Amino acid sequence: MRSLTCRTALVFFAISVGAALGQTSKNAEDSILAADLAWEKVYSAKDLEKTVAFCDEEGSMLVPNNPIVTGKAAMAKAIASDFALGDLEWHANKAVVARSGELGYTSGTYEQKVRDASGKIILDKGKYLTVWKKQKNGSWRVLMDMFNSDLPPSATSTF
Amino acid sequence: MRSLTCRTALVFFAISVGAALGQTSKNAEDSILAADLAWEKVYSAKDLEKTVAFCDEEGSMLVPNNPIVTGKAAMAKAIASDFALGDLEWHANKAVVARSGELGYTSGTYEQKVRDASGKIILDKGKYLTVWKKQKNGSWRVLMDMFNSDLPPSATSTF
Repeated sequence: MRSLTCRTALVFFAISVGAALGQTSKNAEDSILAADLAWEKVYSAKDLEKTVAFCDEEGSMLVPNNPIVTGKAAMAKAIASDFALGDLEWHANKAVVARSGELGYTSGTYEQKVRDASGKIILDKGKYLTVWKKQKNGSWRVLMDMFNSDLPPSATSTF
Repeated sequence: MRSLTCRTALVFFAISVGAALGQTSKNAEDSILAADLAWEKVYSAKDLEKTVAFCDEEGSMLVPNNPIVTGKAAMAKAIASDFALGDLEWHANKAVVARSGELGYTSGTYEQKVRDASGKIILDKGKYLTVWKKQKNGSWRVLMDMFNSDLPPSATSTF
């Protein structure tokens, strides 16, 4: 029994060290990256219902040239406007999750084909930052979503 | 001794419940808000050395109309450019910290007096999102800093 107790203690110790070394964090990063990818899939397909389902009830969108919007209904409106603006794709290149596992962010680059005032298609390129909150059921929801263009102001002033 | 052990256990229980109820989180939010305010103070005073000292070694700035920059030296360059652009002030209205206490974000509004191409001063207004990481010494450092304007594109296309 004594030996078993020691072994059990060692297993707990190993798990603790593993967590401290960031092994748990690696799984959490994979999980938040999977959420980012799943959101991109329904967003780029312009599926409004499935896209809005990723938004936290108290989430906000911080869209360039517009005031911040907060709450699921307001986010749905902003997303619908974005769908109408053009075709968007993005790709995460960074993911960080807190040790406690319920808060994290993803960041990366986007490309959006936007129709300008004259009807011409312009390729906008930029970057984004999304803060995610893990729900009690384990799924990630968007708390804050922000982006801005890499292009010079003159290139984006017509859309 | 038995009574003391029980009392000690109860104190630990009370601390755990306190943390679970978010009392620790409130302190953490105050601490990240204080960091945001301290950064604003040195940023608005255009003290480059003290401003850059708030940046994490692996931090990034996501400035509109520019590619993302990463690392302290690149952030210093972006901040110096921003100092030259005009006078910036901001005010946080949201702060969230993970339960584990080492990752969080602040968000709020900014105002910047910007000189446009013709030399005229324009008041730009917008919003920001800053992700912070707590260092081992307890101080907060900027991991990600992003902002964009609330004004229509035409108003910001000349600076």
